[in-house]
Amino acid sequence: MHDTPARRATTPVRVRAVNGSTSEERPDRLVTEEPMEIRIQGPELDAEPVAITMRTPGNDFELAVGFLLTEGVLLDANDVASVAYCLEGTGTQQYNVVTVQTRRAPDADRARRSFAVSASCGVCGKASLDDLEVRCEPVAPGPTVARSVLLTLPDVLRTEQSVFEATGGLHAAGCFGADGALLALREDVGRHNALDKVIGHAAMNKRLPLADQILVVSGRVSFEIVQKAAVAGIPIVCAVSAPSSLAVDAARRFGQTVIGFLRDDRFNVYCGSERVDESA
Amino acid sequence: MHDTPARRATTPVRVRAVNGSTSEERPDRLVTEEPMEIRIQGPELDAEPVAITMRTPGNDFELAVGFLLTEGVLLDANDVASVAYCLEGTGTQQYNVVTVQTRRAPDADRARRSFAVSASCGVCGKASLDDLEVRCEPVAPGPTVARSVLLTLPDVLRTEQSVFEATGGLHAAGCFGADGALLALREDVGRHNALDKVIGHAAMNKRLPLADQILVVSGRVSFEIVQKAAVAGIPIVCAVSAPSSLAVDAARRFGQTVIGFLRDDRFNVYCGSERVDESA
Repeated sequence: MHDTPARRATTPVRVRAVNGSTSEERPDRLVTEEPMEIRIQGPELDAEPVAITMRTPGNDFELAVGFLLTEGVLLDANDVASVAYCLEGTGTQQYNVVTVQTRRAPDADRARRSFAVSASCGVCGKASLDDLEVRCEPVAPGPTVARSVLLTLPDVLRTEQSVFEATGGLHAAGCFGADGALLALREDVGRHNALDKVIGHAAMNKRLPLADQILVVSGRVSFEIVQKAAVAGIPIVCAVSAPSSLAVDAARRFGQTVIGFLRDDRFNVYCGSERVDESA
Repeated sequence: MHDTPARRATTPVRVRAVNGSTSEERPDRLVTEEPMEIRIQGPELDAEPVAITMRTPGNDFELAVGFLLTEGVLLDANDVASVAYCLEGTGTQQYNVVTVQTRRAPDADRARRSFAVSASCGVCGKASLDDLEVRCEPVAPGPTVARSVLLTLPDVLRTEQSVFEATGGLHAAGCFGADGALLALREDVGRHNALDKVIGHAAMNKRLPLADQILVVSGRVSFEIVQKAAVAGIPIVCAVSAPSSLAVDAARRFGQTVIGFLRDDRFNVYCGSERVDESA
């Protein structure tokens, strides 16, 4: 059930670099983007494809487990019996299909429903929030975090982003303790995948819920990010850039703290300010 | 068939702004994120839900038409008979379901297939590219663009981003002529939505293919962006940030030019450098 080592996370390329009036051909590296198919298999259920996501290879098993949990296909991390690559394909394809085997029958209907389309006419933010409410509890009060600690987090995230360093091309999600210690960091061409990998990592190490952790994402905070964090029980969600309206609505509903524009010497708290100690 | 005016693109919010050791409560604006359901209806086909996308309200009809075209559900923009909001819901929900009525029977199977999941084991970048190849021709040679023109494009994009200006929270896609004139710009919380709106706008004005235009996106270039641009016949794709490996692979296959890190006084050309005149 061990993941393959991070491989193919970057791809070599020749590039024509133009700088002012000069230019040169030189080697460079791109962040790798490849589709991965996630399948679920359980008692009385043959391996069923659940989703294809475009992702950066590496930590694929974490991604599969994290995705199934945060999308509500798996309700309990303890239901995961094993995770494996499907080896029917050849070459790199062997590493683009991951099957999660479950101990209990998974909610195959939800699996299909997640990727099918609602037939109701009333699709709105409220409906999305109602659906989420069925699946997760409000988060625990959790820790209080000092202003001085918050201000250190983006630099740590950036420093630890090895693939970003090489390519400038991808997102990161990191979980921190209230003392500012980095506990887990994952990178991916998709922001949601980076978070699913972090949550999958915690799940495979029996560490859910992440009730005492602070999530920092490298870009913006969308509804999807807050939703996945809520399922994992993460109380504080920080972003280097802006949150969306539905992200803040969702966080309010689940009692989470949302912090945006966390950079330089400042940040904005959109909700849950009781978890921020401005005096420390 | 006219879209409603851009409304609800931003949402007011109260924010606790912390700056150094001071802080204050103040009003702010967030980019609005709301789900939108896209339906298709044609001869012998009742309105069928095709997708739900999280988007920023505004130019919703363009988004629906652009999405259906770039995802291959509609093969010809001339097949669009009308576009309308579904009015069964109440309040804001009325504006979150859009039905596209077609003159010819749409490819409902492809509609379903697009959002279902491939059953084959071999999912890889090549398979995604093969699927795309079925749907679109290599782009035309198109224009050559001067280095000096390219360098002006990101500033124009940024200046015209009115919602970004208010919220700092979203992506833009803009189409330019080879002389650097801005022809269309759309913003959205989702990068792919911003591009679908630009392409839908062109489709509804009978301007496809965009064989003489230059696309600039505010962030990174993923496979999805190149794919949508290829379907619209756009020969040159530029980004302020990095492309992914599969984005460059796809662009090579379709004869497109990909330019990344277009900012300050420099850029990188990853493929199709014959369309860039470095001396001008």
